[in-house]
Amino acid sequence: MAGNRRIVLAERPRYTFPTTNCFKLGSSEIPEPAEGQVLIRTQWLGIEPYLLGKVKRASGQAPVQLGDAMEGPAVGVVEASRNPELQVGDRVTGLWAWQERALSDSNHVRKLPAELKQASHALGALGYSGFGAYLALTHLGDAQPGQTVVTGAASGGMGQMVGQIARIKGVRAVGVAGSAEKCRLATENFGYEMCLDRHLRSALPAELKKACPQGIDVYIETVGGRVYDAALPLLRLRARMVVAGLMTMYTANSLPDGPDRTMVLLNEINLKRLQVLGLVVFDHMKARYSDFKRDMLGWLDSGEVKPLEHVFEGLENAPSALQAMFEGKNLGKTVVKVSD
Amino acid sequence: MAGNRRIVLAERPRYTFPTTNCFKLGSSEIPEPAEGQVLIRTQWLGIEPYLLGKVKRASGQAPVQLGDAMEGPAVGVVEASRNPELQVGDRVTGLWAWQERALSDSNHVRKLPAELKQASHALGALGYSGFGAYLALTHLGDAQPGQTVVTGAASGGMGQMVGQIARIKGVRAVGVAGSAEKCRLATENFGYEMCLDRHLRSALPAELKKACPQGIDVYIETVGGRVYDAALPLLRLRARMVVAGLMTMYTANSLPDGPDRTMVLLNEINLKRLQVLGLVVFDHMKARYSDFKRDMLGWLDSGEVKPLEHVFEGLENAPSALQAMFEGKNLGKTVVKVSD
Repeated sequence: MAGNRRIVLAERPRYTFPTTNCFKLGSSEIPEPAEGQVLIRTQWLGIEPYLLGKVKRASGQAPVQLGDAMEGPAVGVVEASRNPELQVGDRVTGLWAWQERALSDSNHVRKLPAELKQASHALGALGYSGFGAYLALTHLGDAQPGQTVVTGAASGGMGQMVGQIARIKGVRAVGVAGSAEKCRLATENFGYEMCLDRHLRSALPAELKKACPQGIDVYIETVGGRVYDAALPLLRLRARMVVAGLMTMYTANSLPDGPDRTMVLLNEINLKRLQVLGLVVFDHMKARYSDFKRDMLGWLDSGEVKPLEHVFEGLENAPSALQAMFEGKNLGKTVVKVSD
Repeated sequence: MAGNRRIVLAERPRYTFPTTNCFKLGSSEIPEPAEGQVLIRTQWLGIEPYLLGKVKRASGQAPVQLGDAMEGPAVGVVEASRNPELQVGDRVTGLWAWQERALSDSNHVRKLPAELKQASHALGALGYSGFGAYLALTHLGDAQPGQTVVTGAASGGMGQMVGQIARIKGVRAVGVAGSAEKCRLATENFGYEMCLDRHLRSALPAELKKACPQGIDVYIETVGGRVYDAALPLLRLRARMVVAGLMTMYTANSLPDGPDRTMVLLNEINLKRLQVLGLVVFDHMKARYSDFKRDMLGWLDSGEVKPLEHVFEGLENAPSALQAMFEGKNLGKTVVKVSD
């Protein structure tokens, strides 16, 4: 092994989400920064549902090529700099390859805020998870104090932020999650007033109805499937549905059996005057990230937001971390610790 | 028969849309207006898809009771008045029973604009059809000059208005309709640049793609089914879908066979950052009708909008008119002429 270990995409997922079989550990020489570049030592990798698009074709983004290093959100420290805007020792975040050391430049990374105590929070609370929750709840969802927001995966990277931001905003959050343990976390730590175990299955619609006696004002879709089925009939007139992800679709081998209920959704949108809005977090970086960062840094500092992380130790465990997140085995935001 | 003929709801539709079997001709005494009321002689009835909700339970509105007169949008003339705001001879429009003469008051009808030459246009171009098209295209759809709007039922009450308003606004309209004759009307008279016959069936997606080489910016959903199937893959990033109706659902006995593609729609909404917005025209009367009325009266006067009406003669033919509209046998806006 040469000095720079990396995780290489070895094969694409055969059916749905990536498993450890899709990756192998490789290595390369430690690269030298050219003029304008910096050498970064990777400290943390952020594990996100959107990484599915990096390993599969047929999604919105260009996938990683077979034999190339996997890539995604990361945090690291500058070890060598030929860029006047970045100094040795600067903590930075951006998108780069899953390897111990990577090259970048000042256009592709940004410095972590000096106030940020825990660098990995740049990937969760201050990253796509937190920013996505903030956008879904406030900007797209327009949730008002006293209203009810519902979301699935309530203890996951984004779900834990939806609950905590809702608590701050005076919005009543009701969650659905994949186990009793996750539900306990959601209500005890993440600001959810109630959380229902998804394994209630056929009882879920009735239980969710009891938990939302006034109906749902904002539904943040990250899961689909049974959570969607339970939420749709409870949406109020003029409710908003923010579609940020569809974990059940990413992890299923095929579409559910019929009948085809697409027209049922369109009919509900019509009769209830719903607004259904697609959210991709990248779109909003320029316009809204700085406001969000200011708010979130304040909440982290005051303790109003306390992120929970599910930490996998070692670059070699990044594929396991990714698989575990798609299997719903994470409690909190999944991150990989690569170096100190 | 007493002096006031009426159409009574005799039975609810067994499966889907109302047929002539659901109604019978009845009669009542000609009523006397109480203080504050007016007696109106009905001249025109407007036939609308939303009337489905008047004959069936389980939709958003309260249905008409069995044995009561059917009701809907109408135009008439005041024959007797005990309301200082309305004079004998005033032309009025509102919602009232399908009968030759009806009571109302100044809170439930409004006078037709003096400039309106053809009173029945209050039910089409100036009614829900025209106002719905205007809202879908401009306010909810936010269609910009040069953009492409697609809608089904292009020669129907609303479709003909979408095309004509799009032409005025410099928006490129592409339609789908139920016959070659309807398509000819759409392109020759209603401002559509192209119109495709829905009976192309499996060829429709490819033909619609050819007709929309830049994709679709605004999709106005009034039909569902094959039109939706063809339009969804063509929606551009950040496109808007305005859901104003679902004629294929109203006229089907059951949902289509599987697989259940609901998650496909939600995934497209997510990845393409779509905005999908439900439209019920009533909601916007207060805020936007007066602007619309001013615009549409101008377009009617200048000839920029030329409404096509499908006229059924005689109150007794109102059930046939309603059935024909659900069967797609109308060319233009369906209206019933009750009296001169």
